[in-house]
Amino acid sequence: MTAPEHPEGAGWRDEERFELDADGRLRDVHATAPTKYTDGSSIDWFAEEALARARTQMLHSQHGIRGFLLPAMDAARMWFVVILTGVSIGVAGAWLDVLVKWLADLREGRCTYGFFYNQPACCSGLDPGELCTEWKSWSAFLNVRMIGAQAILQSTIYVALAIVFAASAAILVQSYAPYAFHTGIPEIKAILSGYVLDAFLTPWTLLIKALGLALSVASGLVLGKEGPLVHVACCIATLLSRLFSQFKNNEAEKRKMLAAAAAAGVSVAFGSPLGGVLFGLEELDTFAKEFDVMWRGFVASAVAAVALQYIDPFGTSKLVLFQVTSGSDTWQGFEMFPWLALGVIGGVLGSLLIKLNVQVALLRRYSLIHEYPVLEVIGVSAVTAAVSFLIVFCRVQMAELVANLFQECDPNRGDYHGLCNPTALWENVFLLSLTAGIKLVLTSWTFGMMVPAGIFMPTIAIGACLGRAMGLIMQDVQRWYPDAWMFTSCPPDPSVRCISPGFYAVVGAAAMLGGVTRMTISIVVILFELTGALSHVVPIMVAVMTAKMVGDALGSDGIYPIWIALRRYPWLPPVDYKDKGATGASFMRSAEDVVCLEDGERTIGELERLASEKSFNGFPVLAKGRLVGYVERERLLSALRRLEGDTSRKALFSNPKRDAEEMENAVDLTALLEPSMLFLRQDTPQEVVISMFQKLNLRRILFTRAGGLFAGLVTKSDIVALLNRHFPHAAALAEHP
Amino acid sequence: MTAPEHPEGAGWRDEERFELDADGRLRDVHATAPTKYTDGSSIDWFAEEALARARTQMLHSQHGIRGFLLPAMDAARMWFVVILTGVSIGVAGAWLDVLVKWLADLREGRCTYGFFYNQPACCSGLDPGELCTEWKSWSAFLNVRMIGAQAILQSTIYVALAIVFAASAAILVQSYAPYAFHTGIPEIKAILSGYVLDAFLTPWTLLIKALGLALSVASGLVLGKEGPLVHVACCIATLLSRLFSQFKNNEAEKRKMLAAAAAAGVSVAFGSPLGGVLFGLEELDTFAKEFDVMWRGFVASAVAAVALQYIDPFGTSKLVLFQVTSGSDTWQGFEMFPWLALGVIGGVLGSLLIKLNVQVALLRRYSLIHEYPVLEVIGVSAVTAAVSFLIVFCRVQMAELVANLFQECDPNRGDYHGLCNPTALWENVFLLSLTAGIKLVLTSWTFGMMVPAGIFMPTIAIGACLGRAMGLIMQDVQRWYPDAWMFTSCPPDPSVRCISPGFYAVVGAAAMLGGVTRMTISIVVILFELTGALSHVVPIMVAVMTAKMVGDALGSDGIYPIWIALRRYPWLPPVDYKDKGATGASFMRSAEDVVCLEDGERTIGELERLASEKSFNGFPVLAKGRLVGYVERERLLSALRRLEGDTSRKALFSNPKRDAEEMENAVDLTALLEPSMLFLRQDTPQEVVISMFQKLNLRRILFTRAGGLFAGLVTKSDIVALLNRHFPHAAALAEHP
Repeated sequence: MTAPEHPEGAGWRDEERFELDADGRLRDVHATAPTKYTDGSSIDWFAEEALARARTQMLHSQHGIRGFLLPAMDAARMWFVVILTGVSIGVAGAWLDVLVKWLADLREGRCTYGFFYNQPACCSGLDPGELCTEWKSWSAFLNVRMIGAQAILQSTIYVALAIVFAASAAILVQSYAPYAFHTGIPEIKAILSGYVLDAFLTPWTLLIKALGLALSVASGLVLGKEGPLVHVACCIATLLSRLFSQFKNNEAEKRKMLAAAAAAGVSVAFGSPLGGVLFGLEELDTFAKEFDVMWRGFVASAVAAVALQYIDPFGTSKLVLFQVTSGSDTWQGFEMFPWLALGVIGGVLGSLLIKLNVQVALLRRYSLIHEYPVLEVIGVSAVTAAVSFLIVFCRVQMAELVANLFQECDPNRGDYHGLCNPTALWENVFLLSLTAGIKLVLTSWTFGMMVPAGIFMPTIAIGACLGRAMGLIMQDVQRWYPDAWMFTSCPPDPSVRCISPGFYAVVGAAAMLGGVTRMTISIVVILFELTGALSHVVPIMVAVMTAKMVGDALGSDGIYPIWIALRRYPWLPPVDYKDKGATGASFMRSAEDVVCLEDGERTIGELERLASEKSFNGFPVLAKGRLVGYVERERLLSALRRLEGDTSRKALFSNPKRDAEEMENAVDLTALLEPSMLFLRQDTPQEVVISMFQKLNLRRILFTRAGGLFAGLVTKSDIVALLNRHFPHAAALAEHP
Repeated sequence: MTAPEHPEGAGWRDEERFELDADGRLRDVHATAPTKYTDGSSIDWFAEEALARARTQMLHSQHGIRGFLLPAMDAARMWFVVILTGVSIGVAGAWLDVLVKWLADLREGRCTYGFFYNQPACCSGLDPGELCTEWKSWSAFLNVRMIGAQAILQSTIYVALAIVFAASAAILVQSYAPYAFHTGIPEIKAILSGYVLDAFLTPWTLLIKALGLALSVASGLVLGKEGPLVHVACCIATLLSRLFSQFKNNEAEKRKMLAAAAAAGVSVAFGSPLGGVLFGLEELDTFAKEFDVMWRGFVASAVAAVALQYIDPFGTSKLVLFQVTSGSDTWQGFEMFPWLALGVIGGVLGSLLIKLNVQVALLRRYSLIHEYPVLEVIGVSAVTAAVSFLIVFCRVQMAELVANLFQECDPNRGDYHGLCNPTALWENVFLLSLTAGIKLVLTSWTFGMMVPAGIFMPTIAIGACLGRAMGLIMQDVQRWYPDAWMFTSCPPDPSVRCISPGFYAVVGAAAMLGGVTRMTISIVVILFELTGALSHVVPIMVAVMTAKMVGDALGSDGIYPIWIALRRYPWLPPVDYKDKGATGASFMRSAEDVVCLEDGERTIGELERLASEKSFNGFPVLAKGRLVGYVERERLLSALRRLEGDTSRKALFSNPKRDAEEMENAVDLTALLEPSMLFLRQDTPQEVVISMFQKLNLRRILFTRAGGLFAGLVTKSDIVALLNRHFPHAAALAEHP
């Protein structure tokens, strides 16, 4: 409890903002001047919102037509940024898809009439059934005829290009934008809750993240593009909001814009505009707290989806990536059992994946690997490429694998790598389980390396493999025992499909996502927009619920909160903390350990010495032991600097209650107090204190004790430490790149 | 600002809860005893949550196996109630559907072989194409052969039964359960935010609401069953949670259960489990504030949907009520214009509907109609039935109309009342607009009469009529000018449908719902689950957004907040209030107008006199002007009664600082202070104060001024009054039934 206070809110304010009024009192004349924060600090939400408020009031108070036009312009600028962000991320997402497809196809072959065509583009314009001769595998292109040499050539190019792509991504990230590594969602969650990390959102990071993402996805590493796309969206929003001072100079407004952009990022990543909004609601606290943020997210998501659909990178002119072509719209009651089982598996494997990932992250941090991130990427990509080349379900691009696992077998569509061959049932089940296992291990290593990497798509792929395997087993059981009691509700005609393994894959993916991310509604909506499996929303809900319950019972948080804790961002998990009868008094820093200022009793010199010596963020201000307010250190220092330069000593004589001699030296702190400061009785239950921090974006709460006297204070970092107490590795990766 | 304090929190506590400890100090021994609230008061969230906390701690502190078993039992009971509520509301919803269908069909004819079969049940088991001879219209059944007499007989029975059904519903409601009238959603919103209205949730209300709902829907009045079903779900949850003391004795826990039940109600009403959860998130504040409530709502919704699907009242074995059979999965860019237009129309007509509805409510309240609610219902149902019988789109049951408007024309399905006749275009457009207009007027009268009545379905029907009309116009324009620049993106083959009027109906319904309820995401999800129009989620979003923006610009709130304001429930709208530089000081009740208690300075007699004379809810407690805390009046009275009966005066001698003589008479109030009381500086901006009330379920905030002295207080009712200031008719219907 007596740990040094986290440097939240360390920023500076211009001393020019203070002036003396006619009576010689200190006055805050530049209340609208923005505070500049340094990376690693936390913003003061109340102060930022007060700035925004002052600005709005100033605009509305203009006379005549200006009083109407200026606020309208303000709103227009806001919507301009929201819509432009939506369009940009839609365009960026579409181009990224095209780039990835081209790079990935390059690993297999090239287009004879143009190097920059990917395979579908190269083969477009053919009649159905016509063979595509323009796209040639490398061995065909290089005229290698021997089967053995062909295999060696193909596999060598496949592995070599994988390594080249992955290494380029790692070098780019390491050399130019270290913050472009990883998924970015933990950082975004922290930033949205008030953490300052401007290096994370520079144009340079945007460029490297986008390029590195394309390279790392194309390299075939087991990672997804969804999380990083959210980061890209946030970078774009930051770039665009610099155009207007209303965002540039206000950290709260900037964050509201970022939240909307994050929703748009999810919308584009999954082609799921509604999923974007719900992701915002569930994962980004800003949404739930501010109605108009949800509203902007809604617009940005819709615009981004329209832009994506308009550009139509897949040439399907629809948003749905993995259309489920389920034969039947209904499901049978007994299927609830395998689905519940998938939910349990998702919860268990999700927790396992999280734990493995944490162990790998710790190993990487505390071993030699830490020194050679590019070598690590090269090694892992070589292993991944070599393993993948051998197992067919690992070799295909993940999106293609998932799309095919979600599909029902259809004799007209062909036999997807033997998946639809009913005689090879156990081989398929084995192969799918093996693929899931390999991907699980590779994902837990890859997620955290020095390349942009998301965890959504690998998780979906693992879940889809397991679900499909479960579906195949169920289908086989039904085929052999059609008269068992379980299957009585199936249609009697054996040619009508009763069990849809493709839908089991969807359920498996939902369960796995639930286990890893611990999200609920957003997963259901995303999967349901992703697949169009409308009539099956209840099974998806059940699987996600079960997975989350099992995962939570296994005692771990979701992967994003874990990474936030590992990196020690000051982010309050939205958990429902239960105390054991503790009150504010039992965890506050008590008054004896806190340096307090008696109002109107200290001279400039004393105050300045105190403020310079102590590293606290600020000081409670008392009047004869009674709590009056709180003054921030930086604000105090600026004001003192202003006062020092002033020749008239009148500025200090503002406490009318004191006699002349004392007044000579004492500083009246009233003008410097934080306006919105929360005081509570020290008997307030700990739970209530924590929920106030969670709901109000507070930085600190002051406590009073019997008789109204100052008792102590609690800061946000105390609460963060308390809530992460159960996680043994908290702050293990606190050193940032 | 000096209005009498609203009687929030007026309840009593047992004086037995106070005891004197060994030192003679007052001690609160029954902190776990439930507070009993009277109807019309507001619960104290902090106190209720403290009770729940104390209970949990007590359970966990048990030794051995009990310490594990008791908490597990607690959780099991909670899930038992959640799941049973889900199942019950699923079953109730299914049976209500069956009952309504039977009653409504009875207005047209009867089944020859069994009076209790509805038309589809009567005609089931026929081969496709076979004519159903078992179901006979009344004229056929009574062997009336003359065409004229047939028409007269049919119309007479149609109108007469409508009146009988409606009148029975009104009589039932008026005589047995006045709270069963109307939709119930405003009351539920108020109750969930802490208002106490036990009469609203009795088993009796449940019965009357369900029965009255079936009758009023079957009578053909322009109303829906969706809102009332949410009320029914909440009654069921109340009934079930009485089984266990953990809910019965804790108002906060009870409300969490109600929120989950409300979500299940929406899930059943629309067959939309996800929509239920989102309705909860958007409309019920409890969801956003408490994660585990959303979680319960999720489970209850899913269970209810499974129960409904299992019972399968429509015999379609799917949840989707109005499947859209849109030919194409895509839409053209130019269609955005008619959809935006529909959004604008939805916003304008939605606001108009709300304004008309308020005017009718005021007229009803302040005229003779108020005295004769049953006559009013009879009159309106007669007019409705008569008008409906004449216009074909009004005559059919609303759900059937909507289902058909959402469908595309298909030569194999037949020509729905001439809707698919391309030569009768303008007749259809006129008829649809007329239907929309009639329904708009009838809805604004019906919603608020003495029958259970929801507004969702009429709103959907109005919007669907207008949307379909717009779609028909667009289709005709395209038919005549296929080469116009707008239509260049249409497929060149004229036999391929480019414009889907059925989908325009969905967009129209979304826009109208947006205009009336001002919800956003939940409407999109509900409509999208209702229709399966997955690929069209973006247009629905755009229409809802536009409708909400236009509606908000026209200056009115949604229909539910308006009714809450009309009835003056203490509910804080989740608006983003913007002050004009005002602070807490400018709207608080200032210290001079508030009766304060100096701690340890008043005798029992003085305190008792004060507490009995003043009707305030409680008193700030000061120590030499410094703010110490707040004591509630009822709690103070109970403690005083306890002290009076005590022979030892020692109980009062607990203030060690006072000299013996004074101590003789003074009461130490420390044990009676509210533990969780918020103090703020009076300079805190009004916006911040209001957002704290909105986010923390507070009942009051105390303010301090310079020097830490008590400055004043603000209560929740002050905030409610402030936020409803702009609505001229606030509290117009404050007298409850």
